[in-house]
Amino acid sequence: MKDFIDSIKARDLAARNAFQILLLYPGVQAYLWYKAANYLYKRGLRFLPEWIMYVVRSSLNIEIHPAAKIGKRLFIDHGTGLVIGATAVVGDDVTIYHGVTLGAVGKGAVPGAKRHPTVEDGVVIGAGAKILGDITLGKGCYVGANAVVRKDVPPGATAVGVPAVTKK
Amino acid sequence: MKDFIDSIKARDLAARNAFQILLLYPGVQAYLWYKAANYLYKRGLRFLPEWIMYVVRSSLNIEIHPAAKIGKRLFIDHGTGLVIGATAVVGDDVTIYHGVTLGAVGKGAVPGAKRHPTVEDGVVIGAGAKILGDITLGKGCYVGANAVVRKDVPPGATAVGVPAVTKK
Amino acid sequence: MKDFIDSIKARDLAARNAFQILLLYPGVQAYLWYKAANYLYKRGLRFLPEWIMYVVRSSLNIEIHPAAKIGKRLFIDHGTGLVIGATAVVGDDVTIYHGVTLGAVGKGAVPGAKRHPTVEDGVVIGAGAKILGDITLGKGCYVGANAVVRKDVPPGATAVGVPAVTKK
Repeated sequence: MKDFIDSIKARDLAARNAFQILLLYPGVQAYLWYKAANYLYKRGLRFLPEWIMYVVRSSLNIEIHPAAKIGKRLFIDHGTGLVIGATAVVGDDVTIYHGVTLGAVGKGAVPGAKRHPTVEDGVVIGAGAKILGDITLGKGCYVGANAVVRKDVPPGATAVGVPAVTKK
Repeated sequence: MKDFIDSIKARDLAARNAFQILLLYPGVQAYLWYKAANYLYKRGLRFLPEWIMYVVRSSLNIEIHPAAKIGKRLFIDHGTGLVIGATAVVGDDVTIYHGVTLGAVGKGAVPGAKRHPTVEDGVVIGAGAKILGDITLGKGCYVGANAVVRKDVPPGATAVGVPAVTKK
Repeated sequence: MKDFIDSIKARDLAARNAFQILLLYPGVQAYLWYKAANYLYKRGLRFLPEWIMYVVRSSLNIEIHPAAKIGKRLFIDHGTGLVIGATAVVGDDVTIYHGVTLGAVGKGAVPGAKRHPTVEDGVVIGAGAKILGDITLGKGCYVGANAVVRKDVPPGATAVGVPAVTKK
């Protein structure tokens, strides 16, 4: 737990101490509840972990399917509107901002097949980005705000959408 | 109700049974509350249906104006951040993901005039898409994630924004 | 307070009276709570104002850091998913729709430095737009839905992303 808290202080200038982080960071609370729900899910329970994450979504507005596989020290910053699907895989030391979706493409999904993204270690995903389908965001890559990503992103690369154009 | 539940099972691989869907699907709950609020609204009440939808928004984070006209079997998947405006019209068997807005353009709106979109039967709207103004999404069309749509989309067509570009 | 309520009636066709606006407009409630939290913050308190805004975020789904500097008559319409960072500065008579972020860029931030945007008087920011870094949105400018803005926008200008393209 201590290295998790320390990693957040290193990633957020507004973080002050462990007490404040545990009580006031919805993304930290959601991640810890996910850990509990995922533990129950792996032991074969279904409704209870789904209900836990439903309550988390209602109170913290962060939606993580209990079946998702998430590594260590995930930092969800702000978090509002985050959706992580059932077959998503997330590595260690990932940072995800609010409004991000790790989602499915919808068409042609096969029951049991992996339909959500894999996010490797150290990836940073900007606010509002939508990562869709069984694709891979490579180690340490960066995805810009509001980007729509439907293909693999190589390790260390940057994937961005089109910035706004200004007209007089 | 049964064909509504069945239609959701057909549209979401994570759906398991009617019990789970009714208790754990915020989009289903919001749609049913909208039905009640819209019933009251059509009978001339204003504050009560608006308050119902205010509570729904606070607890489920899905915002539907009680005056909106919505058809049968709307499936709101995830739903967080959804906003449907007062003069929006939505047909049957529509699927809308989280973060979508059926909104107004803001400038030049006339009181009483229709200022929100019409969404015809069977349309699918991806996460984060913003549909703005009194435009029509034609029958069975598809709108991609984070797309900004301000013109009519013909029936069966696909409207998408620009996907992210990857740089090394 | 009266000119605040009047300014909202002028900006939202669905607004009916002060009673409805104060009880049913989450953006109005969040703004008033921010005023209280910011008052405490300026007097040197930290945890209490942060906790107030944590509760506001949980119940209204609007996240405003108590240290942000916000002027008069801010109208947050709908508001779901809004994030306003600690060093953001917002002028008078600004209108911000739901899903907007006034955020930091993340890389290279220096403790104590201003890392969030300045938004001048009368600006309108459309739903889902992400305004990132220590940039300035000039007086009376307009930012379109889902636009990603990382450079200054001159006064009176319009900054928009790329609208969706329709394919048959």
